[in-house]
Amino acid sequence: MTIVIEGGTVVSAVGRFKGDVRIEGGRIAAVGLGVKSPGDTVLDASGCFVLPGAIDPHTHIEMPSGGGFNADTWYSGTVAAAFGGTTTVIDMITPERGRPLAEALGDWQARARPGAMVDYGFHMSLIEARPETLAEIPAMVRAGVPSFKLYLAYKALMLSDAEAFAAMRAIGRAGGLALIHSENGEVIDLLVAEAVARGETAPKYHAATRPAAAEAEATARACRLAELAEARLYVVHISCREALAEVLQARSRGLKVDAETCTQYLVFTAADLDQPDFAGSTLICSPPVRTDADRDALWKALAARQVDVVASDHCPWTQAQRERGRDRLDRIPGGLPGLEERIPFLYTYGVEEGAISLEELVALTATNPARIFGLHPAKGSIAPGADADVVVWDPMQTRIWSAATHHTLADQTPYENLPVHGAARHVLVRGRPVVQNEALAGEAGYGKFLPRSGGPSSAPQLSKRRIG
Amino acid sequence: MTIVIEGGTVVSAVGRFKGDVRIEGGRIAAVGLGVKSPGDTVLDASGCFVLPGAIDPHTHIEMPSGGGFNADTWYSGTVAAAFGGTTTVIDMITPERGRPLAEALGDWQARARPGAMVDYGFHMSLIEARPETLAEIPAMVRAGVPSFKLYLAYKALMLSDAEAFAAMRAIGRAGGLALIHSENGEVIDLLVAEAVARGETAPKYHAATRPAAAEAEATARACRLAELAEARLYVVHISCREALAEVLQARSRGLKVDAETCTQYLVFTAADLDQPDFAGSTLICSPPVRTDADRDALWKALAARQVDVVASDHCPWTQAQRERGRDRLDRIPGGLPGLEERIPFLYTYGVEEGAISLEELVALTATNPARIFGLHPAKGSIAPGADADVVVWDPMQTRIWSAATHHTLADQTPYENLPVHGAARHVLVRGRPVVQNEALAGEAGYGKFLPRSGGPSSAPQLSKRRIG
Amino acid sequence: MTIVIEGGTVVSAVGRFKGDVRIEGGRIAAVGLGVKSPGDTVLDASGCFVLPGAIDPHTHIEMPSGGGFNADTWYSGTVAAAFGGTTTVIDMITPERGRPLAEALGDWQARARPGAMVDYGFHMSLIEARPETLAEIPAMVRAGVPSFKLYLAYKALMLSDAEAFAAMRAIGRAGGLALIHSENGEVIDLLVAEAVARGETAPKYHAATRPAAAEAEATARACRLAELAEARLYVVHISCREALAEVLQARSRGLKVDAETCTQYLVFTAADLDQPDFAGSTLICSPPVRTDADRDALWKALAARQVDVVASDHCPWTQAQRERGRDRLDRIPGGLPGLEERIPFLYTYGVEEGAISLEELVALTATNPARIFGLHPAKGSIAPGADADVVVWDPMQTRIWSAATHHTLADQTPYENLPVHGAARHVLVRGRPVVQNEALAGEAGYGKFLPRSGGPSSAPQLSKRRIG
Amino acid sequence: MTIVIEGGTVVSAVGRFKGDVRIEGGRIAAVGLGVKSPGDTVLDASGCFVLPGAIDPHTHIEMPSGGGFNADTWYSGTVAAAFGGTTTVIDMITPERGRPLAEALGDWQARARPGAMVDYGFHMSLIEARPETLAEIPAMVRAGVPSFKLYLAYKALMLSDAEAFAAMRAIGRAGGLALIHSENGEVIDLLVAEAVARGETAPKYHAATRPAAAEAEATARACRLAELAEARLYVVHISCREALAEVLQARSRGLKVDAETCTQYLVFTAADLDQPDFAGSTLICSPPVRTDADRDALWKALAARQVDVVASDHCPWTQAQRERGRDRLDRIPGGLPGLEERIPFLYTYGVEEGAISLEELVALTATNPARIFGLHPAKGSIAPGADADVVVWDPMQTRIWSAATHHTLADQTPYENLPVHGAARHVLVRGRPVVQNEALAGEAGYGKFLPRSGGPSSAPQLSKRRIG
Repeated sequence: MTIVIEGGTVVSAVGRFKGDVRIEGGRIAAVGLGVKSPGDTVLDASGCFVLPGAIDPHTHIEMPSGGGFNADTWYSGTVAAAFGGTTTVIDMITPERGRPLAEALGDWQARARPGAMVDYGFHMSLIEARPETLAEIPAMVRAGVPSFKLYLAYKALMLSDAEAFAAMRAIGRAGGLALIHSENGEVIDLLVAEAVARGETAPKYHAATRPAAAEAEATARACRLAELAEARLYVVHISCREALAEVLQARSRGLKVDAETCTQYLVFTAADLDQPDFAGSTLICSPPVRTDADRDALWKALAARQVDVVASDHCPWTQAQRERGRDRLDRIPGGLPGLEERIPFLYTYGVEEGAISLEELVALTATNPARIFGLHPAKGSIAPGADADVVVWDPMQTRIWSAATHHTLADQTPYENLPVHGAARHVLVRGRPVVQNEALAGEAGYGKFLPRSGGPSSAPQLSKRRIG
Repeated sequence: MTIVIEGGTVVSAVGRFKGDVRIEGGRIAAVGLGVKSPGDTVLDASGCFVLPGAIDPHTHIEMPSGGGFNADTWYSGTVAAAFGGTTTVIDMITPERGRPLAEALGDWQARARPGAMVDYGFHMSLIEARPETLAEIPAMVRAGVPSFKLYLAYKALMLSDAEAFAAMRAIGRAGGLALIHSENGEVIDLLVAEAVARGETAPKYHAATRPAAAEAEATARACRLAELAEARLYVVHISCREALAEVLQARSRGLKVDAETCTQYLVFTAADLDQPDFAGSTLICSPPVRTDADRDALWKALAARQVDVVASDHCPWTQAQRERGRDRLDRIPGGLPGLEERIPFLYTYGVEEGAISLEELVALTATNPARIFGLHPAKGSIAPGADADVVVWDPMQTRIWSAATHHTLADQTPYENLPVHGAARHVLVRGRPVVQNEALAGEAGYGKFLPRSGGPSSAPQLSKRRIG
Repeated sequence: MTIVIEGGTVVSAVGRFKGDVRIEGGRIAAVGLGVKSPGDTVLDASGCFVLPGAIDPHTHIEMPSGGGFNADTWYSGTVAAAFGGTTTVIDMITPERGRPLAEALGDWQARARPGAMVDYGFHMSLIEARPETLAEIPAMVRAGVPSFKLYLAYKALMLSDAEAFAAMRAIGRAGGLALIHSENGEVIDLLVAEAVARGETAPKYHAATRPAAAEAEATARACRLAELAEARLYVVHISCREALAEVLQARSRGLKVDAETCTQYLVFTAADLDQPDFAGSTLICSPPVRTDADRDALWKALAARQVDVVASDHCPWTQAQRERGRDRLDRIPGGLPGLEERIPFLYTYGVEEGAISLEELVALTATNPARIFGLHPAKGSIAPGADADVVVWDPMQTRIWSAATHHTLADQTPYENLPVHGAARHVLVRGRPVVQNEALAGEAGYGKFLPRSGGPSSAPQLSKRRIG
Repeated sequence: MTIVIEGGTVVSAVGRFKGDVRIEGGRIAAVGLGVKSPGDTVLDASGCFVLPGAIDPHTHIEMPSGGGFNADTWYSGTVAAAFGGTTTVIDMITPERGRPLAEALGDWQARARPGAMVDYGFHMSLIEARPETLAEIPAMVRAGVPSFKLYLAYKALMLSDAEAFAAMRAIGRAGGLALIHSENGEVIDLLVAEAVARGETAPKYHAATRPAAAEAEATARACRLAELAEARLYVVHISCREALAEVLQARSRGLKVDAETCTQYLVFTAADLDQPDFAGSTLICSPPVRTDADRDALWKALAARQVDVVASDHCPWTQAQRERGRDRLDRIPGGLPGLEERIPFLYTYGVEEGAISLEELVALTATNPARIFGLHPAKGSIAPGADADVVVWDPMQTRIWSAATHHTLADQTPYENLPVHGAARHVLVRGRPVVQNEALAGEAGYGKFLPRSGGPSSAPQLSKRRIG
């Protein structure tokens, strides 16, 4: 079947043009004028922006947690993704201690396959660094999972420095990419325990017990370890100026390090945690949301191209699940919805307010993640030969965000009552509508696993001038 | 007439795809597969990269000089441009002291019109800052010349600090862009005079009399003046680490400042000035070529996206003209060819040696200059609706560069005998071949003047979070 | 005559001890216990700190100005100095354009000799850099005036960059020290003229027309020029964070550069300029007083040893003289009293509030200036062999500062009504009391000219390890 | 008994004078001229510098090690100290795991008391951070041991981040000072184990297995933890530019952090580890000696006052002890002699070669350590009231350093065969000669324990301007 998306303004990371997009066999066949043939199926994009399907490289969908899972299933999570204009997710696998990575990958594949509405890949978390674990890294890379998340926080997940270093080195040698959750977990656990002991258990204490300096410290440490390990690094969910400054410092020393922030750090501040009746619990995530100055600095860093990706760290919970921590700050499950929120909120609070351009939104949410995570050129741009992952974005829509209408199964959200502009009219994955005329059109299981390659190679060789 | 460029790999600043480019009415109509219709003229691009026509935003073509002109005419200069894959030049107008800017623009238009093979725009130099001069700035912006070059060096051209500040402020208020030649001309003139008095008149003394610290100083000064004047800044021909560091420092303070380097700073070093029998005179330009460490740092800065543009500062001379300075360093006319050299040398010494990717070459020579100088979206990308400025680049060609075969009228070149890989098979300007099958195909006067808009607006407004 | 200062706490830059100070022949003979002999004259210092006489290396006493002089005579100015605990001043000579430096030195010597109560040296300002001027530099160094002030502001005084560079180089070669007034005079003159044209002539507009960025720019420029000239540099009256940051940056590149701030930048802010009825005119000085953040940063920089000297830039005016500028901001003569204020205000607002220690006060006002300006070891410390310049400081005194009681002839002061703690009980110059029991004891003309040497030599040679 | 040191040049941290030093009751009574009385014992200092006795704040004397001790006894170590001009040592106590700190202090007191020739204090190492351990901190401060060493390296000694943080916080609250050994021990242990597994067991592999980045990382981490803990920090034995840069960065953020380097990092480089027949083992210490560039940078940092203290980290071994590691890099005991070497080598390679002044040597080895470690004003300066710890330094002596003649019991030294200039003619501790005419004069047990106070208090309060 041939589809033509007609009459929109096609946007890339570097520009936009009015024209049509012809799709054949699930791929972009051509873009421009005069690309429609008689008999083509036409999707109307008049008055709309036509964006490459967004890639969310940081999600926790149907994440196992204490016997059950977080609020989403792969179906609900990827329906939310589709409505949010995201056509590819890269989900975090967290293996069980002691089990082979391959088995964990199998589990995630098994859960994702029947439910996924959009395409998906995986990052493998390394929560231990036994020789057997590290020995599995090349096989994971070959299996299309070339990126590995390391935690410097959370007692159940974190690696020691030697383990993180050994893991980074093994990842680097296998041509992979190390993702780092950089908070000093030991210090934070101590601060949290002390706060709990003092009875400071309300959500508003969350930010104070995870100070920015503890994030900056771990970020600096991760960069030094990556230098020693000769590995490429990707710092997830940077939340504050001080951590970002450490990334810039490491870049100036020559480290290849990419930086991610998330929607919530661009929208909320710690003041939003302080709400009556446990309502602040909807915004518990780690690192925590920070100060006004941090939020403004992150917006500026997007415009200055110091931050490469805006992801969601999507990890929704139900109110009932949050209640586990009503009297124990440390038991509130952390995370919040973001898959559906990312594009609308970046569009509304970023593009419309002039902080970033629409081209920059595309770069930050599609083109950059595709290049960094080895999905380029199939994903990330509307270019001939690429998968026809396309979002027809209608900027004239206006909505009030609400848990009553969002598509994740979480029954609460910190975004409740915030107005947003714009909505996805049509969303195509490999040429097939999963959202059409703002209604669900795809089917569970259509999304497919994307084996990925290792991404850009290491540092450039400098010119020796006389090539002859 | 409809042209289809068939079978190549189309490259943008963010990716590449195999496909065809359909051109109608001088514009890109469509790109992709299946865009050819019966009867279309076909240009074969098999085995080739299809690049957006390069933009050289820093040239001195047929530049008046002491009664005559430098080596090029608009015809010869733009023929060299075309063979070098450059389809747009932005040339520097240097008005005579005391005459209205509009008259100088008229002179340049008159010289350019009959000879130009490729499209052209102009920057206006402000070599004085009288009230009448500054009062002309808005008219220049309206006339499509929204960028203004200020000199902090050369006795005949340089502005005082107050003049530069007043000029920047007027430019900023008119929505224009200030270009700065940042060397401390006063100090350099003194050092040069002293060197001449000591009999140090050979080309090899050129670098020593224009030290890096004098460039860094003026760069820092220009950035501070732009901050005070609330103007956007573009630093031309950065040649050394210390000047680049000042740009990065100013960016960290919040200044919007773009950075340009030139081909020669990426290929040569000061050691190349020290050659027998005045041969080093072919490489006299200001700022001078620097050290190995500076050259390597500039390549790294390209890859790190700290430098935005590679231009040529094309300003060729004949050997006879150089001879004026055989015994007087300060009388050697400064400048060298670059219009034809830029893409081949960046390709050979940058892309092939792994210092930058081909996508980065496109960004640095086409997409970025188009955005910075208000030529986007007509120029700078192969995108539907854009002018069909296209280069079919054959990477399999190998040549030895020589003044005997280059197209500028300069009869000597510092690039003599250097090998290069790749050559432009076809070059189209607005859909019309100016080079076809590596032979000249255009005609003098085809190139047209490009009135430009003022470029990106000022600093983003930061989000206030609650838009409602 | 032998004098013993008995019973005090003697303070140096690195410590303090309870003990006596024995003075013979105008010099410190011994310090400690048991140094008194029968028949010695005793000055009681019980309950007091015994400080080395302070050195004020930045004063304008009896400064010629438009036919007359500023408010002080050498007598009144040095009486103020003595009461303020300052036993040496280094005054700025401003030669007339076109006259030899030697004649200006003669003029200043002639004015100073009859009136001086305390010792004095001179800095020579270079307001032009003709070959004859620069040729006089070595003679000035031999005459004991090895420090030279250069202005980058004030139309009547400022040097061009080439002149400043040539002057610095000549100073460096002669073993001298370059002092720099670093504000961008050209830009400031333009801003002032525009403010006046807009009718913004009240004192409160003074700070806005001399922005911090204009000081930072000139500071960076001076540092780069000194690097090129291979000269030691001393930046006078740093008023803001941004200028200080440039000094730190230059130090990190290896430049030998000392930093001075003045009392007023540690006490006042721009808010103090905004007072009814022209009262803000008492605080007009250049650079202007700045923000709270700048003031706090300067205090921290003192404690962090980033700033080396606190001087006064003493230059008092009468109310009648200030009135010249009542309707013309640019005609208000600039400067304020400081010779008498420096030690009491540093003591009260610095030492007593814990921002600096008393030892640091001694370092900043005596020991450091002595070393930097070639007065060490005769001046700057209470050490055997040194001149017996001693201040017996009674910390129990409390006063309200007022023009009615200060000793300069200025009839107004911005310090009016501010409380201070501490006062000089006795002040000795070369062993002779000039203040005794808080009353004037010296006589006009006792102060003598101090020829100075060139100060510390250039950069250290680094160890080659094997010395054998 | 009254002693007068006659005819020398007395040197302080800020100057020098010719004069005598009168000593009564073990303290400096007076300095200057005419301080001698009939009957005084006279020590001749003609032709000599008279320096304050040096303080070595980082030693390991008679250090327990695997059942025995390192090469020195308290007698031999403090004899070496005395000959080297050091009159006070602050030795590191390393308690056994599980035992009270007080018992360890008792052990060290017991070993030191009978043998000590010079005065001594202690730092307490915290190799665990159990609640009971931290609870002992205030008692240690009260017992005169207010400084606590934390290790981030060595499996047997290192704290986790949470432990280090908790310890710093407890130290800060008790008014103490945290010393940090900042290397990333985990990563280093891994690298060492791998090197050993590869058979890289020669001393030359020592530097490669403890990379500078691992020191810089831990330094940055320690600074951040101290910021979070609100503690003062003292970084011991900085060996490289990158670690120093982290200290400067932390200072710019406001942290109170002092920096120490050691003699060996100023004299040797990693090239000296590569010697035939295990000779490089004499230079094994951690961090390792580094590159030429690091050594030069450390000398410059001394002159720029970025480093506050030069200590020795004295920890000597016999050849037999070193042999334990002949085939196992990780079993070579680390450390080298330094107590006797520090002053002569700083004098010869620093002062005589112009890298630092003699005043700076005094500051770095006596005055600064006294202030930082709470020994001021009794120690660190020749000032009335201070302990008469005095070194009469004869700069005319020349020696070739050798294990055959040094006074530590180590039978080998990396300093073997290096020439030094200068030697201690007389050394007094509290007025009593321990070295007289270059011969031992003191007696075992004369040295006494110095209870210390907590040192300078925390950050200064900034001025609020209006004190009234």
